[in-house]
Amino acid sequence: MNKKGILIVVSGFSGAGKGTLMKELLQKYEEKYALSISATTRQPREGELHGREYFFISKNEFEKMIAKDELIEYARYVENYYGTPRSYVEQKLDEGKDVILEIEIQGALKVKEKFPDTLLLFVAPPSAQELKHRLVGRGTETMEVINSRMSRAAEEAEGMENYDYLIINDTLEECVEQMHSVIQAEHLRCSRNTNFIEKIQKELKEMKGE
Amino acid sequence: MNKKGILIVVSGFSGAGKGTLMKELLQKYEEKYALSISATTRQPREGELHGREYFFISKNEFEKMIAKDELIEYARYVENYYGTPRSYVEQKLDEGKDVILEIEIQGALKVKEKFPDTLLLFVAPPSAQELKHRLVGRGTETMEVINSRMSRAAEEAEGMENYDYLIINDTLEECVEQMHSVIQAEHLRCSRNTNFIEKIQKELKEMKGE
Repeated sequence: MNKKGILIVVSGFSGAGKGTLMKELLQKYEEKYALSISATTRQPREGELHGREYFFISKNEFEKMIAKDELIEYARYVENYYGTPRSYVEQKLDEGKDVILEIEIQGALKVKEKFPDTLLLFVAPPSAQELKHRLVGRGTETMEVINSRMSRAAEEAEGMENYDYLIINDTLEECVEQMHSVIQAEHLRCSRNTNFIEKIQKELKEMKGE
Repeated sequence: MNKKGILIVVSGFSGAGKGTLMKELLQKYEEKYALSISATTRQPREGELHGREYFFISKNEFEKMIAKDELIEYARYVENYYGTPRSYVEQKLDEGKDVILEIEIQGALKVKEKFPDTLLLFVAPPSAQELKHRLVGRGTETMEVINSRMSRAAEEAEGMENYDYLIINDTLEECVEQMHSVIQAEHLRCSRNTNFIEKIQKELKEMKGE
């Protein structure tokens, strides 16, 4: 079977519980997955570590990476760059790990264009009402922030059809298992096993000639 | 989530162990799957039961079914017709069961053309050598029959790329689980959940307008 890892993009509305889900998946199947770490030019916030939340680099370093095509995708928000360094991703894929990028839809589509084999997963709450409920339930955001997140979710939802699979984040455990089995099933896709197919076709042809 | 079942075609070389695999899958997940039963005009062999192995019908009855478009696909081998009655399949799909057709490649491609949502699975042994080994191991076939099956496998292998997923039949238990998880993952495909996607898009838009 094909030993190379699969590149996976996970997107979802802010508040859908993507962060917790990723953490749980990576903890449970540590040997199978690697989480890509983005590079950014913004300042680290309290509690954030270089190489854990982000690679915090200078604007100058970031622009050098762009120039050398060392980023799979990047975007500029307000004054800061955010991007996915290519080398880490390729190294992990070569090791046979499935690499997960947690990025939003514009980035997801750019990655898919560059690497058509990318698997696009969208994590959604069971309903819009439930999304709002979760955002309110956190108790950490003002209503203004919550409303702006709901607006953003409405915009992001327009792109859901472009994703390959939809994971409904109802209970955490079930959601982790669904994500895991969608990715594992993807390894069995014929288009990812052309080496095996060509090998058995050749073997059968040779035995027929015997 | 989408409640309608998925139409699944399973193909594979004779001797790859497809029969045992199907039997095990249907026994283990009885509530999820239904196996489509073909109609044929050939005579029942010893031990075969009408409505279990096949629906044994007359040539006249079969041709009436063709005329009324009551078959999803059919083919004629030598003197006999073989085909898949539509009504049973549609009834089970409406009940939310995933319906499995065990047919060969020409039939598989016809079904996919008529129902593009069909999931095509190919069951293959780990190698051509292993296929021959299994055929010989049965001890029930002459070398002539074995060689003709190997030839037929070489022909069938040419169409493997047209299938969606490849299931390597190494150990039975693992193979059953792979097949089950490929089918379950397929239920999460965005293209099979357009109702949910449209619903949440609409909800989010309405909440934004509030």
